[in-house]
Amino acid sequence: MIILVMNAGSSSLKYQLYNMLDESVLAQGRVERIGMDASILTHEPEGKPDVRQVSEILDHNTAVKRLTDLLTHSEHGVIRSMKEIDAVGHRVVHGGESFKHSVIVTLEVKLEIRRLFELAPLHNPPAMMGIMAVEANLPDVPQVVVFDTAFHQSMPQESYLYAIPMVLYRKHKIRRYGFHGTSHDYVSSQAANKLGEPLASLKMVTCHIGNGASCAAIRNGESVDTSMGLTPLEGLMMGTRSGDLDPAVVPFAMSKEELTINEVNSMLNKHSGLQAISGFSSDMREITDAMKDGDKQAKLAFDMYTYRLRKYIGAYAAAMNGMDVLVFTAGVGENSVVLRQAVCENLTFMGIELDPELNESKSKETRIISTAQSRVKVLVVPTNEELLIARDTYKLVLEAV
Amino acid sequence: MIILVMNAGSSSLKYQLYNMLDESVLAQGRVERIGMDASILTHEPEGKPDVRQVSEILDHNTAVKRLTDLLTHSEHGVIRSMKEIDAVGHRVVHGGESFKHSVIVTLEVKLEIRRLFELAPLHNPPAMMGIMAVEANLPDVPQVVVFDTAFHQSMPQESYLYAIPMVLYRKHKIRRYGFHGTSHDYVSSQAANKLGEPLASLKMVTCHIGNGASCAAIRNGESVDTSMGLTPLEGLMMGTRSGDLDPAVVPFAMSKEELTINEVNSMLNKHSGLQAISGFSSDMREITDAMKDGDKQAKLAFDMYTYRLRKYIGAYAAAMNGMDVLVFTAGVGENSVVLRQAVCENLTFMGIELDPELNESKSKETRIISTAQSRVKVLVVPTNEELLIARDTYKLVLEAV
Repeated sequence: MIILVMNAGSSSLKYQLYNMLDESVLAQGRVERIGMDASILTHEPEGKPDVRQVSEILDHNTAVKRLTDLLTHSEHGVIRSMKEIDAVGHRVVHGGESFKHSVIVTLEVKLEIRRLFELAPLHNPPAMMGIMAVEANLPDVPQVVVFDTAFHQSMPQESYLYAIPMVLYRKHKIRRYGFHGTSHDYVSSQAANKLGEPLASLKMVTCHIGNGASCAAIRNGESVDTSMGLTPLEGLMMGTRSGDLDPAVVPFAMSKEELTINEVNSMLNKHSGLQAISGFSSDMREITDAMKDGDKQAKLAFDMYTYRLRKYIGAYAAAMNGMDVLVFTAGVGENSVVLRQAVCENLTFMGIELDPELNESKSKETRIISTAQSRVKVLVVPTNEELLIARDTYKLVLEAV
Repeated sequence: MIILVMNAGSSSLKYQLYNMLDESVLAQGRVERIGMDASILTHEPEGKPDVRQVSEILDHNTAVKRLTDLLTHSEHGVIRSMKEIDAVGHRVVHGGESFKHSVIVTLEVKLEIRRLFELAPLHNPPAMMGIMAVEANLPDVPQVVVFDTAFHQSMPQESYLYAIPMVLYRKHKIRRYGFHGTSHDYVSSQAANKLGEPLASLKMVTCHIGNGASCAAIRNGESVDTSMGLTPLEGLMMGTRSGDLDPAVVPFAMSKEELTINEVNSMLNKHSGLQAISGFSSDMREITDAMKDGDKQAKLAFDMYTYRLRKYIGAYAAAMNGMDVLVFTAGVGENSVVLRQAVCENLTFMGIELDPELNESKSKETRIISTAQSRVKVLVVPTNEELLIARDTYKLVLEAV
C-alpha cells in the first residue's frame, strides 16, 4: 500500500510518499511560498537527484497538482500513476473534543474541522485547503485526518479544565487540549519498544523540544497531562513563545503598552521565549554557542528554559506518583547534549542518572542515555510524526475495506 | 517593649498589640467598613470583655484615633498611655525590588511605597493610609514596614523572570514577585525549630493555603521560587482566583465575551477558582462538606485544587533537586485533613508518607504529621504573620537605638 502524507500550512505544503510494505519513504518534499512571488517546490525522490523548481504556485490545488505531476514524472517520479496511491493522510492541528482518534474524511468530518476553525484560526483552515486540494486532484482516494490534539483527549478533567467560570468551557470550549500529540504518542511507543516493556506498565514523561515545545505525562500509554493548553502558547518556554506567565501580565502589559488583543498575542507568540531573553535568537544552537562565548543573556535564556522544563518533569512525576521513563525528542531534544545534561543533572533525587558518554552519542537511532543503575530510564527518541500519520492512515483504510 | 501591629485594607484595619517581653498579645481587634455607613470596631483586650462599637468612622485617621482611645481606655484599655507603645509595624503587600527586608519608615521609604502603587494599586495605597494615620496620631513613634514580597527577593533570575520581551521588565518591572512572604518565612523557621535542624540545611516546600494560596521552594532558609507572580493571581487554584492558565485564554475570552481589561481581571480574580468550578462556594470547608454529600462539581473542584498543588510540590522538589520538609499552613492548610491527605497520598514516590492519625489531630500547635519512616517530614505549622511583623519591628527599632 502506498500512502501520501501531507502537512499543509497557510503558505506551505510538506509531503512524504510511503511504501507501507517496509515503511520506506519513496519521495518527500515541500512547496513553500504558496500564493506569493516565486513559490519554491523541493522534491526528493528516493534514489534519484533532487528537484528544485521556482515558479508561481497560486494555491494549494495547484501545489497538489504540481507534486502529483512530479511523483509520476518519467524522470523525477517514483510511481507510474496516481492510481498507485491508496490513501492520503493529513496532519490537522486541532481536533477539539470531537476527535479522540484519527478518522477517515467524510462530509461530517469536514464540517466538524470547519467548526473548529474558531479554536485554531491559523492552523485548521490550511489543513482544510490541503484536504480540498487532494479531493480536487485525487477524487477517488480515501483521506484520513490525524489530529495533534487527539492523543491528549484521554486527559482527566482535573488536567484539562481551567479554574475559570464553567460557562467559558461550555460556551466557547475553553480548556486544555494540548498539541504535539502525534509526536508524544509515537515516541512513547518507541521508547517502550526499545526498553522491551509494555507501554501499559510504564509512567513516562515525554519532552518534545523543538522550536515549539511541550511535555506530556503518559501513564499506561495514555496522556494524562500535557503542558500546552487551549493554544500552543502555554507551558514550557519556547523559541519565540513565552510559555507560562501570570495571566494578569496580559491585561497589565496591554494596559501599560496600549496593546490590542492581536498585538499582545503576537508579542507572546512571536517575540517572547528564547528570542526575548537572549535578545538575538530563538534557536537553541545559537543560544548554546553564544553561552560558550560567555554571553550572559544567552546563559540566562538557557537557564530559564531548562529550569522550567525541569519543573514540569517534577510536576508530572508528582501527577503520576512517580515515573519510570523520561524521553527527549524533536530538534532540540534529540540534538542538544547540554540541554539534556542541564535538565537531568538536578533530577538525581528522582532516580535520574544520565550517562555522560551515552548522552554525547551522535546516533540518530532511539537510544538509552541513562546509566545502567538509573532508576528512571532516559531515552532520546527521534520523532517521526509523518510515519505515525502514515500508519494511522494505513490502519484506518485497511479496516474500512 | 510594646509594639502595635497594623494591617490596613481599603476599608478595614486590623491590629494587635504585643508585649515583646513574652510575645503575648495584649489586645487585638479590627475596624471594618471604614468610610461606609455603620463602621464596626471590634476590640478584644486580654483578660477583659470584648468591645463592639457601631458608629461612623470616616477614614483611617479616625480609625487609629478610635483604637488608641480604646487601648488606653480606663475600662477597656490595656495600657495607660500611648507613650507605652514603642513602635508600630505595618504589613505592606508590595515592596517591589526595592525592599528585600523590613525597614524603618522614612520619607524615602514612603516615597518608594508610593512609587509601587502602580504594581499593587489595590493594596499599597491603604497601607500608606495606615502609616499616615499613625503619624497623625502617634507622631513620635517609630514605624516599620514589613513587605509580603520581601522574603521572595532572594529568588534567582531564572525563577523570577518571565520569558517575555525584556523591555517589559526594564520599563514596567513586570516579573514574578511572589506574596505571602511573611508567612512562608515564619512557617519555614518554625518548622526547622520543631525538627531541631538548622534552616540552612533544609530543602522545604511551604504551602500557604488560605482563600489566597501560594507555595514556595525554600533552600537554606531562602525562597528560591514561589507560585504567585507579578500579582497574586498566578500559581495555585484559589478560592476565587484561577491560578495558572494558558496566557492566550485571556485575549481569547476577552474577544469572545467582549470583556474589558477590568472585566477580565475581575473574572479571573473574583469569579474563578473553587467558586467557578463548584458553582456555589469559594470556601474549602463547604466544598469538602458537599463532596461528602456526593456533589460532583464540588469533587471536581477539590480534585483540580489538590492536583495542581501536588504538581507544584513536585515542580519545586525538582527545582531544588529534592526536598526534606513539606509544610502546610493558613486556613485550609492548617485545618483541612482531607486536603493534606489527597495531596500527600500520591507523593509516596518522593518519600512522603503521611500518618493518618497525626494528620487528623486537632492540635493548634506546630506538629509533624508524617510517619517516623517518612523520608520527607510533613508538618502543619499555624502561621502568624502578625507575630513576625512584631518581631521584625522589635529588631529594627532596637538596632536603631
